[in-house]
This record gives sequence, C-alpha cells and structure tokens, in this order.
Amino acid sequence: MTKPVRLVVAVALIDADNRVLIAQRPEGKPLAGLWEFPGGKLDAGETPEDALVREIKEELDIELCRTCLAPLTFASHAYEDFHLLMPLYICKTWDGDISPQEGQDIAWVRANRLQHYPMPPADLPLLPALRDLLA
Amino acid sequence: MTKPVRLVVAVALIDADNRVLIAQRPEGKPLAGLWEFPGGKLDAGETPEDALVREIKEELDIELCRTCLAPLTFASHAYEDFHLLMPLYICKTWDGDISPQEGQDIAWVRANRLQHYPMPPADLPLLPALRDLLA
Repeated sequence: MTKPVRLVVAVALIDADNRVLIAQRPEGKPLAGLWEFPGGKLDAGETPEDALVREIKEELDIELCRTCLAPLTFASHAYEDFHLLMPLYICKTWDGDISPQEGQDIAWVRANRLQHYPMPPADLPLLPALRDLLA
Repeated sequence: MTKPVRLVVAVALIDADNRVLIAQRPEGKPLAGLWEFPGGKLDAGETPEDALVREIKEELDIELCRTCLAPLTFASHAYEDFHLLMPLYICKTWDGDISPQEGQDIAWVRANRLQHYPMPPADLPLLPALRDLLA
C-alpha cells in the first residue's frame, strides 16, 4: 500500500537550564497521553519555519523568530496510514511567557531523562541527538 | 510571495576511512559545478527512504537498504523560487561498486575538508553535523 507522506515540523524549546519542553497529547487526539515536542503540520503556502511559528503561538502563546530556529535532526516513521517526516528544530529564545492553550500538560525535562516520558514511536529516535547536544 | 516547499532527500555516504562522498552537479543543471550530497526529489507515493534508494541507484548504481539509512540533520533554505527542505541521512553500507551514471564527478572527502568544495547555499549548514559525527 502506498502511504502519503505527512510533513510535520516540531521544536525542542530549551530553557536557560538546558531543559527541554515536551507536551502531553490531550485526550481525544490520536496517541493521547503520550509526550511529544510541540509543532504541527504545514498549511498550504507555509515554509517549515512559518508553520512552526504559527503552531507554537497557537499551542503555547509565545512568539518564536524564524532565524532562532536551528535544524537539529529529523524523524522518518511509517505509521499505519501515513509516513511521517518530522524535522526537529531547536530554539533557545522566544518572546512571551509559555502558556498552554489547548489544555495540554507540559514538562521541562533534562535530555537524559526524556526517555522516561512515554512518547509516540516516531519521536524516540530524536532523543539521542538531543542528549548529544545537551549533555 | 508564497513559495512552494520542495522536499529533496540526500545522503552522506561514508566509507570505511570515514570519508564522505560528494558529487558535482553536471553542466546544464541549475547550480552546475557545485558539489552536493547525492539524492533527489520524492516521486508520488514514495517514502523518503524509497526515493533515496531509487535516486542513488540511478545516480551511482549502488543498492542502499532502507534500514541502513540513519537520519542525521536537515536543511531548510529559501531559494528564489521555492523553499527547499532537505533531510540528510547517513549511510555506511551498500551493495555494489559506486559508478557515476550521469557524467558527474565524485569525490571522497574528509568531513573537516568539505568546506573547501563549493556547495549550494542550502548544503553549507549541513557540514557542522557531519564534522561533529566524523571528527
């Protein structure tokens, strides 16, 4: 079966203490209860950075600047109905105070403890790059 | 102006001596003469790995296995007419002998010397990740 490729961009927000923000997928969504890096799908006509700035504003009510988004690594994972391609950026600066807008729980976690938070299978291969970066 | 996002997958082939393969874009193509990592665009219905296996067979006449392709990093670059999103995989094993099929020159280069080869602007931000990996 041919699966469509779904492009989703995500960001690891990193605070001054080198902790990473993850958010818990709310009830009612696929993979509810699992922890993930915030982000989402590109709308038509958006660049990856545009989409991430928009999604993070919607989800966390902060403003990212496009040039503060640095590519780290990406995930490529075959889900049952689609193939996920997910570039992961890192970002250490933003404007505003983080305030979850969708009822989601968030956590600030050290890179070497991220594996203790249950995550979607696509996200797990991203963790070594974060550990290497923040160790 | 809204630019379309162009998804191109590329691979850094790495030999037993930790050198990286780059190929020179042939005359007549955009960015002719510049050096780049082999790869290309996804055809309809292809996963990123499918596309890379096909492109590398076409360009270099070797067989990659999908599970030997490891995500490293990605480039996101605004060209004039499109926005390039380019995941870069690494791969250390393949079947067959590398044989350029499109008249392109190839070079095996140590990671810390890649910056001496003129490259498209989108490729340059990929080099630090390769240097870190192969240092």
